[in-house]
Amino acid sequence: MKLLRVGTAGAERPALLDEDGTLRDLSGVVTDIDSALLADEDALARVRAAAAAPGELPVLDAEGLRVGPPLARIGKIVCIGLNYHDHAAETGARIPGEPILFFKAPDTVVGPQDTVLVPRGSEKTDWEVELAVVIGRTARYLDSAEEGLAHVAGYAVAHDVSEREFQIERGGTWDKGKNCETFNPLGPWLVTADEVADPQALPMKLWVNGELKQDGTTADQIFPVGEVVRYLSHFMTLYPGDVINTGTPAGVALGQPEPKPYLRAGDVVELEIAGLGRQRQELKGA
Amino acid sequence: MKLLRVGTAGAERPALLDEDGTLRDLSGVVTDIDSALLADEDALARVRAAAAAPGELPVLDAEGLRVGPPLARIGKIVCIGLNYHDHAAETGARIPGEPILFFKAPDTVVGPQDTVLVPRGSEKTDWEVELAVVIGRTARYLDSAEEGLAHVAGYAVAHDVSEREFQIERGGTWDKGKNCETFNPLGPWLVTADEVADPQALPMKLWVNGELKQDGTTADQIFPVGEVVRYLSHFMTLYPGDVINTGTPAGVALGQPEPKPYLRAGDVVELEIAGLGRQRQELKGA
Repeated sequence: MKLLRVGTAGAERPALLDEDGTLRDLSGVVTDIDSALLADEDALARVRAAAAAPGELPVLDAEGLRVGPPLARIGKIVCIGLNYHDHAAETGARIPGEPILFFKAPDTVVGPQDTVLVPRGSEKTDWEVELAVVIGRTARYLDSAEEGLAHVAGYAVAHDVSEREFQIERGGTWDKGKNCETFNPLGPWLVTADEVADPQALPMKLWVNGELKQDGTTADQIFPVGEVVRYLSHFMTLYPGDVINTGTPAGVALGQPEPKPYLRAGDVVELEIAGLGRQRQELKGA
Repeated sequence: MKLLRVGTAGAERPALLDEDGTLRDLSGVVTDIDSALLADEDALARVRAAAAAPGELPVLDAEGLRVGPPLARIGKIVCIGLNYHDHAAETGARIPGEPILFFKAPDTVVGPQDTVLVPRGSEKTDWEVELAVVIGRTARYLDSAEEGLAHVAGYAVAHDVSEREFQIERGGTWDKGKNCETFNPLGPWLVTADEVADPQALPMKLWVNGELKQDGTTADQIFPVGEVVRYLSHFMTLYPGDVINTGTPAGVALGQPEPKPYLRAGDVVELEIAGLGRQRQELKGA
């Protein structure tokens, strides 16, 4: 299923993109696509039944309708740093021996077409296309990557917007450059895990002002999705509705020769992952 | 006011500790003490009016009643590292030039008397008594420390439990050792800012198995509360119900000579900050 949330920010309604590409209203079936839904087997079964007979759901007019983030009430967002061989190489970093993690606050999440704000004083705002993993079952001290994968509810496109001066040059942890407002566009869809045959074979691309900047694949991940979930479950408990941003491939501004082409107000970033949809954001000043 | 939440985990009710030390039920006034309440001026006014005439509120029998964390639906928890001169000295760190920050997920929060779990495989679980600051108004690009203080709704005791191997020796950011389940006991009370005359003059103490380990004061903070709020507001937006753990004074296990006295199952940690109440946790294996 491709689940999404449409409408004005803070007042989105749950929706389904059916196999014909028709947008259908799910608000008669569930109140929202959120962490509570993912933890509620009965509600999930109702959504699956509705998706199996989409003709019975009201059609929504997609024209002019804002798409919000496909998941509400996210508990936490854990991010994996330097998780692609090619990106680690471009930044001059060694291949990590175990996953590097940092956090984004859920309040950084916006819809896939929403404006991204360049922070005041920022000269190093950078882009990162990432595969977001949405947790479906409580994960605690898992034994294997297979078990890790079995705890995944679905996948989405995430834009892990990053301010490199804040992240690297201002002391302390990377979190400082990862949590500016609007820094985590998510969506358009939450694609359930049954529709993603192999999360390690997803081409991903990102363009700035129409120019292709990132052209990678999840096949290049150092720690694949199931292993990331297993690993994290030994340092924290993962709950339904938690999100993991699993890292970015090569091609970010940080990895370019000087002068590095960091983002400015007016720039347009587009990104997509095969099967998970496409985002487009215009940048403005905060 | 001293606001708190009492009852079984996940089903706490809002309560008030009145000036006579009597526990009174607030559930007829507001549904919960949470981020929504802090953002709702009308609901806050009702709580203040009720607190001004506490005799009209039902008395709760405190005997045997669990105290939960004093705030629900926390948006994010931002933590400041190395924010006390004496703690920076004991860890051999330089005094930071600007605040070091990291994150704890809100799902790590438990009540002040709840069990703390030593993570599986942990040999370096450590204690940290901290002043927690609760945000009351949206803070974004603030100009001054005075403005920062004006955005604070209140204060609480926080225990920033930390696993030093996970934090320091496992690669990446400190977040890895700060987010194990039960790692953020909070409370007993949310003490509103009007009752804390000077947040930079609060004695704070922590004992392990009855032995005094930390004996500090917020007067030793490198970056005081108002400055921390101002600083953070330039890197992220702070919302009502966000929490800032403002750092710990000297006396943690990490700062002791070898063999460092890290926590084990069966240990009991007690901590208090003047005017903000006292916590007591027994440690068990995860």
